[in-house]
Amino acid sequence: MKLLEDRIRRDGKVAPGNVLRVDSFINHQMDILFMEKLAEEIRRRFTDKPVDKILTIEASGIAIATLVAQKFGVPLVSAKKSKSSNLPDNIYTCSVKSYTHGNVNSVLVTQDYLKAGENVLIIDDFLAHGEALKGLINLVEQAGGTVVGAGIVVEKAYQRGADALRASGLQVESLARVASMDAETGTVEFIPDGT
Amino acid sequence: MKLLEDRIRRDGKVAPGNVLRVDSFINHQMDILFMEKLAEEIRRRFTDKPVDKILTIEASGIAIATLVAQKFGVPLVSAKKSKSSNLPDNIYTCSVKSYTHGNVNSVLVTQDYLKAGENVLIIDDFLAHGEALKGLINLVEQAGGTVVGAGIVVEKAYQRGADALRASGLQVESLARVASMDAETGTVEFIPDGT
Repeated sequence: MKLLEDRIRRDGKVAPGNVLRVDSFINHQMDILFMEKLAEEIRRRFTDKPVDKILTIEASGIAIATLVAQKFGVPLVSAKKSKSSNLPDNIYTCSVKSYTHGNVNSVLVTQDYLKAGENVLIIDDFLAHGEALKGLINLVEQAGGTVVGAGIVVEKAYQRGADALRASGLQVESLARVASMDAETGTVEFIPDGT
Repeated sequence: MKLLEDRIRRDGKVAPGNVLRVDSFINHQMDILFMEKLAEEIRRRFTDKPVDKILTIEASGIAIATLVAQKFGVPLVSAKKSKSSNLPDNIYTCSVKSYTHGNVNSVLVTQDYLKAGENVLIIDDFLAHGEALKGLINLVEQAGGTVVGAGIVVEKAYQRGADALRASGLQVESLARVASMDAETGTVEFIPDGT
């Protein structure tokens, strides 16, 4: 999506250690009117899919997921992260490794909020190694629901987190797919997608 | 706000230890179209105030704050929580005690995203002892900005967290003000506000 690629080139920051900061407009300070356009584009890419519910994971996915849920007119469920191993028993849970923070979180959703037969669209702000996305898919499967796809704002495509999921037939739509970054020059190259 | 009080009476759950759960429609599963009506009401109550920016705190305040920012057409800043004492130096930070989780978090905003002279409206899903709200006010004051008010979804008014702030002249608008709760009978009484 050219609109997003241009904004990343203008306001994104490439930091050492393969970090792309978009925290001036996506995930610390949020340009909500700009993000509304991203949400509309995600809605457009899943027009032909049945969507009963949006699923995201706290915290930085919640804003874009709220706007996508609004466009679809469906509820949003935000999976919680917990470091505790002492969890209640009425939940679906799995472990998700964070490469960014170098730790493992339990990710959980109360069983009342994911149901068998539901068509779930997963939304997140970032996709890198794909650990969070795989964890959320696991939770929907535990509940007996169907993941109809995943909508992502920024995919670090060179980390290949979505390759196996796409190969298995899942529709993963990323509005900007980073092919490479260079912290020294601050440049970001994208895989063109024609939108 | 009668719409919200009715929904809390229908779908809220009173749990032992003064806990009011609204996680079926506000902060785990989120009824986004319903929350849009809450955001419109918060917008209405601050019609006469200048608002340059919305400030909230992760994670459960982000969805309602996103919708309020959309109504005002302004950016949203979400303060981050950190347990680390090893924080970068380009931030505004303060300590916030959580009565719910029994711990103390550092709450922080990167200095680029709160500026001198800005008019900031603070949004959160819950207000109980008021610790989070006081922390966010502190961050805006560190930056040299002005807090024009606070919009809250549910205030546990009997815990009196907003009393001193209102007495000091701050406009704190809570869409439902809980006067008392009873975990045995599951009843919730509200302070009527005529909307």
